[in-house]
Amino acid sequence: MSSRMTPKEKLRPISGFPELLPEYRMVELEWIDKLRSVFESYGFASIEPRTVEPVEVLLKQGDTDKEIYTIGRLMADPSDKAEPTYALHYDMTVPMARYVAANMNDLTFPFKRYQIQKAWRGERPQDGRFREFLQCDVDVVDTREIPLHFDAEIPVIMHEAVEAIGAGPLTTKINNRKVLEGYYAGLGITDAGNAIRIIDKLDKIGAKGVGTMLTEELGLDGATIEKVLGLAEIQGNDASVVQRVKALGVTSELLEQGLEELHFVMRELERFPEGAFVADLSIARGLAYYTGTVYEAKFADFPDFPTVCGGGRYDNLVGDLVSKRLPGIGISIGLTRIFAKLMREGRIEAGRKAPTDILVAHTRGAPYDLVRETAHTLRSRGFKVEQYHEDRKLNAQLKYAGEKGIPWVWFPPSEEGGEHQVKNSASRDQVAADPATWMPE
Amino acid sequence: MSSRMTPKEKLRPISGFPELLPEYRMVELEWIDKLRSVFESYGFASIEPRTVEPVEVLLKQGDTDKEIYTIGRLMADPSDKAEPTYALHYDMTVPMARYVAANMNDLTFPFKRYQIQKAWRGERPQDGRFREFLQCDVDVVDTREIPLHFDAEIPVIMHEAVEAIGAGPLTTKINNRKVLEGYYAGLGITDAGNAIRIIDKLDKIGAKGVGTMLTEELGLDGATIEKVLGLAEIQGNDASVVQRVKALGVTSELLEQGLEELHFVMRELERFPEGAFVADLSIARGLAYYTGTVYEAKFADFPDFPTVCGGGRYDNLVGDLVSKRLPGIGISIGLTRIFAKLMREGRIEAGRKAPTDILVAHTRGAPYDLVRETAHTLRSRGFKVEQYHEDRKLNAQLKYAGEKGIPWVWFPPSEEGGEHQVKNSASRDQVAADPATWMPE
Repeated sequence: MSSRMTPKEKLRPISGFPELLPEYRMVELEWIDKLRSVFESYGFASIEPRTVEPVEVLLKQGDTDKEIYTIGRLMADPSDKAEPTYALHYDMTVPMARYVAANMNDLTFPFKRYQIQKAWRGERPQDGRFREFLQCDVDVVDTREIPLHFDAEIPVIMHEAVEAIGAGPLTTKINNRKVLEGYYAGLGITDAGNAIRIIDKLDKIGAKGVGTMLTEELGLDGATIEKVLGLAEIQGNDASVVQRVKALGVTSELLEQGLEELHFVMRELERFPEGAFVADLSIARGLAYYTGTVYEAKFADFPDFPTVCGGGRYDNLVGDLVSKRLPGIGISIGLTRIFAKLMREGRIEAGRKAPTDILVAHTRGAPYDLVRETAHTLRSRGFKVEQYHEDRKLNAQLKYAGEKGIPWVWFPPSEEGGEHQVKNSASRDQVAADPATWMPE
Repeated sequence: MSSRMTPKEKLRPISGFPELLPEYRMVELEWIDKLRSVFESYGFASIEPRTVEPVEVLLKQGDTDKEIYTIGRLMADPSDKAEPTYALHYDMTVPMARYVAANMNDLTFPFKRYQIQKAWRGERPQDGRFREFLQCDVDVVDTREIPLHFDAEIPVIMHEAVEAIGAGPLTTKINNRKVLEGYYAGLGITDAGNAIRIIDKLDKIGAKGVGTMLTEELGLDGATIEKVLGLAEIQGNDASVVQRVKALGVTSELLEQGLEELHFVMRELERFPEGAFVADLSIARGLAYYTGTVYEAKFADFPDFPTVCGGGRYDNLVGDLVSKRLPGIGISIGLTRIFAKLMREGRIEAGRKAPTDILVAHTRGAPYDLVRETAHTLRSRGFKVEQYHEDRKLNAQLKYAGEKGIPWVWFPPSEEGGEHQVKNSASRDQVAADPATWMPE
């Protein structure tokens, strides 16, 4: 604030805070409508929790690596009531859990909700990452164990949602944390958490790097590492992956349970096109709170592009907020990331600059009342109508309609009488028409 | 952050950051849909500018009384690129002006846009005011003089919008700054700005208080004060107010122009129900940037409740951002304020807890695939359908449907065969039905 900004600086985009022109905002709005329609078709309800939380709610104790934005009052005064430090939410999951915990007695469980909301991350400006973005989450939260049904339904909803907005095809990789942990337990690995963390790097550092880390950090021998990597290599389109895991000869109760769950989920997803859902036993999802099925989706056409949807089952996300356990399962879709990528790839077709169907022209000395009433009549019949804002030469009005891509221009009669006419902007056909009955051909 | 919050404190509402239960969020979503539909029916396009601006864009030089929230990165590091201080927008007008100025070459003028977005004000916690709220703006911005047409159209759109969401009746008071300034000029008052500021207090301090201030601060004599108060007393439902102003015998060119504009606007609004639009020559709207028609709307039933919509014409809002003049006109609707007031008054009927039309029950040993396919068939026909998440005793499922207010419960046949049946939750009638053809009566 010490140096004044020039007018040019004031107009400069802010890195990480994307903005759309109206013709692309129209597409984004259509996306939001379609997503909402898919989520509601499964009976999910919208909630929109406040966008700020106390920092202590967003950060678990000892959690110091979160890039979040705190907010501060410019006019704060020492005499004001003391408050916790608040921050903008960086995702929908923790705020949802807080909302559910705060409204326990007013919700029906299993509570199925969706959110389509902005979130913020306090990224470093030079990193070029999104700092304000639109995210969309579907979750089920219950007061008792979440039925396995949802492990299969949640990715189906996500798949339909992404197809509905034309952002597919995605490939969703699926795994189950119980399979990983149970398999490691069967191998006698006690520190499953760290094993998962290391295996999660397979993509980046390869089998050899993972092997080295497993030896150095967990002291595993060669045979065990081979078994660990053997599991991570298993991928497949259907429930048959379960047989291949069993063929590795490792057993434990938790593994049994995880494989049963994975079998159910993959069997339910077999009906989708090949490649839409792939069991991948190397997938772990970084977040510590997942406890069962996990999901991770990428663009099928851009496999190197980062994950665009992710989620899974968590047994106790809100554990420190309420005495009751609140298990849940859900998926999050990174809308801004998807939109920006598809836009860069030329796959987003701009909408119109305005929603207008018909421009009612005002020219040839037509009385203002007649122009207004013509627009009103057409509007009352469900058309989106602009009344041109002044009596002006025709060319200016046609140019306006052309620039905005308005498909029809309507001409009311002049003061001397005559008939209404309507012109098709594309074909340039102009015909007599009655505003009370006209329908586009 | 020094003292740890207890779990109970973490769940406490934050003063000024309202949250709705799903059944009220459903109503809010319906409001947003209806508002959007009205705005689009007039050809207005949606934009959603970023929610943060540099503080210097939000605050004019010397502007120190704005309660705004600045944002700060928790993980900021001295090695990060220096940036201006950013703040959350406190309304839609300045950010819209910045957006228009930054995208001049990609927009078609007159640019008609609406925004339905959250905004934030850094109010003192003890004041109980909204600090996060939903606001909705319609504006027209042009690169040349805004045609008078919009002075009449903008309040009509606002009226329709408020009626569409069932928040009416409102009374919109209308005046014109040119009338005020022109009238004062005709009286020889040179400091019109301060006269307007004083007259704006008429509601609060009465005619006597205003008279005292006009004497003390502007040195006006008794006759002039009488004339000033005479103007402020004029109110009326139609264009006849213009005659009453003229009858006061004051003249100036600016007054003439203002009266012509006011006449046009009131003539256009005469067709609405009595009391919907009232010319009130005492209305000034506090904001310095208004230059012509101004609007101020209150609940007709709660006249003491503060203004819920306001706006007007501004000749040069973005003047310091671009070399070109960008005049505009618009109205802002305080959705959160309206919603909260109507809720307190018991005028908002809760929606359902979920959008679900049909719960497909899973009981009597029906095969999972059949239950899922039944739900799928009904969903593909446009119904909003929940598949009950496990084979469980019927009572639990009916209780679930009852609590959520789901109007239909569907029973697929059991493993042994039989027919599909559907139960009307309200009438308890249960009949045989085919998921591929059933329609609610």
